[in-house]
Amino acid sequence: MAMPNKEKIVLIGAGNAATHLAAALQENGYPIAGIYSRSSQAAETLAAKIGCIPFTDFRHLPEADIYLYCVKDDVLPVLAATIAPLHSAALHLHTAGSISIDIFKGHCLCYGVLYPLQTFSKARPVNFKEIPCFAEACNEETLKAVVRLGESLSEQVHTLNSERRRYLHLSAVFANNFANHCFALAQEIISQKVLLPTDVLSPLIRETVNKLNTMTAKAAQTGPAARNDQSVMNAQAELLNSIPAIKAFYENASQSIVSATQSTDQISKLSKT
Amino acid sequence: MAMPNKEKIVLIGAGNAATHLAAALQENGYPIAGIYSRSSQAAETLAAKIGCIPFTDFRHLPEADIYLYCVKDDVLPVLAATIAPLHSAALHLHTAGSISIDIFKGHCLCYGVLYPLQTFSKARPVNFKEIPCFAEACNEETLKAVVRLGESLSEQVHTLNSERRRYLHLSAVFANNFANHCFALAQEIISQKVLLPTDVLSPLIRETVNKLNTMTAKAAQTGPAARNDQSVMNAQAELLNSIPAIKAFYENASQSIVSATQSTDQISKLSKT
Repeated sequence: MAMPNKEKIVLIGAGNAATHLAAALQENGYPIAGIYSRSSQAAETLAAKIGCIPFTDFRHLPEADIYLYCVKDDVLPVLAATIAPLHSAALHLHTAGSISIDIFKGHCLCYGVLYPLQTFSKARPVNFKEIPCFAEACNEETLKAVVRLGESLSEQVHTLNSERRRYLHLSAVFANNFANHCFALAQEIISQKVLLPTDVLSPLIRETVNKLNTMTAKAAQTGPAARNDQSVMNAQAELLNSIPAIKAFYENASQSIVSATQSTDQISKLSKT
Repeated sequence: MAMPNKEKIVLIGAGNAATHLAAALQENGYPIAGIYSRSSQAAETLAAKIGCIPFTDFRHLPEADIYLYCVKDDVLPVLAATIAPLHSAALHLHTAGSISIDIFKGHCLCYGVLYPLQTFSKARPVNFKEIPCFAEACNEETLKAVVRLGESLSEQVHTLNSERRRYLHLSAVFANNFANHCFALAQEIISQKVLLPTDVLSPLIRETVNKLNTMTAKAAQTGPAARNDQSVMNAQAELLNSIPAIKAFYENASQSIVSATQSTDQISKLSKT
């Protein structure tokens, strides 16, 4: 079977996401013609790993088929508006959850988004094949190219417009940032008040997540707030009097669970009448 | 090697925790002389599974070496004060995270607590060996018996007094109930606004938890709140205008992460001066 020629890629960015994307692209046979970062150290480190040329001046970037932007949200629109006009015949793609495809509009002909839904740390290897990726493009033909690129990296590629992708990224803040903050507060309580190694929580945390393989998180909800057990909630809030920041989180999260549970109850009551 | 005789056990309760404890006890050779529940259906279902006698009247419970209470917090003190005097020579143990050992005081001679730190659902099998268990007792000799019972069920048994156990239970509310609520809100956003199957979140949720194998949750924290990126936070909160209950959770959780991150920063600044 003849392999199609893989597009030559220039990577804009050298952070966590860029590091993992560069490795996945290279593993899948994409030639990487250069890596740009404002930080010469970051550019050199990643370029050395990949075996390509680092750039800290965007005006010197080589010609390529695809310019792939993996940079922080706040610099992405400016970089896109600056780099895309210099290579306006190429395909320009960003990888951000919250940024509209429209940042490329008027700066080049072909553009799109390929958003990988994952939390990346440089030091942790990831299996890119398992990461859901979300594609969007300026027209049907470009979309095919973006999906093709996505499908050569990941087994799960969906098309998704900018507005829905923004909500997807928001859901990721809940599933990752906020859930992780709950784990952080649990570990803090263990360290400050239980005086045991925090890994006593590990089997509970594993089972919390494993339950989601067989039921929705709403159906899996247990505990005092789900039972609307005010006396236990008051007693537990009182335990946190000496840690007011965590007490506020406890009260808000409990109230949110009570509301969510009651809204289900009301719906199930309505459906019975 | 001679095996010590296993104590004869009566189980008070027939819910999720009782179901899994009964199975673990039987697997480890403990004779179960009876199961009590106010609900005849629950008592009969679990007793049939274990092959023992169900009781709905606590006055008819058989003699045993250990009476093991696995019931809801709000009925536990009353049941202990009622049943323990009827079998005052036996060992009475409860399994609750938030209830003091003192509920048994004056009602029997030997008593204690064996608290398994896990979230139980009847339908989900658990490996009891991996569940950390926390032991407390009225005196040293009884503590040895409680720890021995714990160690025959689990590979990880710690001694812990009632006050620290109460904080342990509180940490479990954060690690399980609150984290699960974050997953529930993420799934709700996906269902209502992204219109994709909620399992697109699964790899992200798995990696969120797997990160804890190599770093603390505080070190693993990422996202707009950890960066104190007010413009992204404002934009994301605005996306939730049509779901005010989730918006309130978003704002509180973000503020809690900002505070936690800044308190770290302040500590690291202090340690530099």
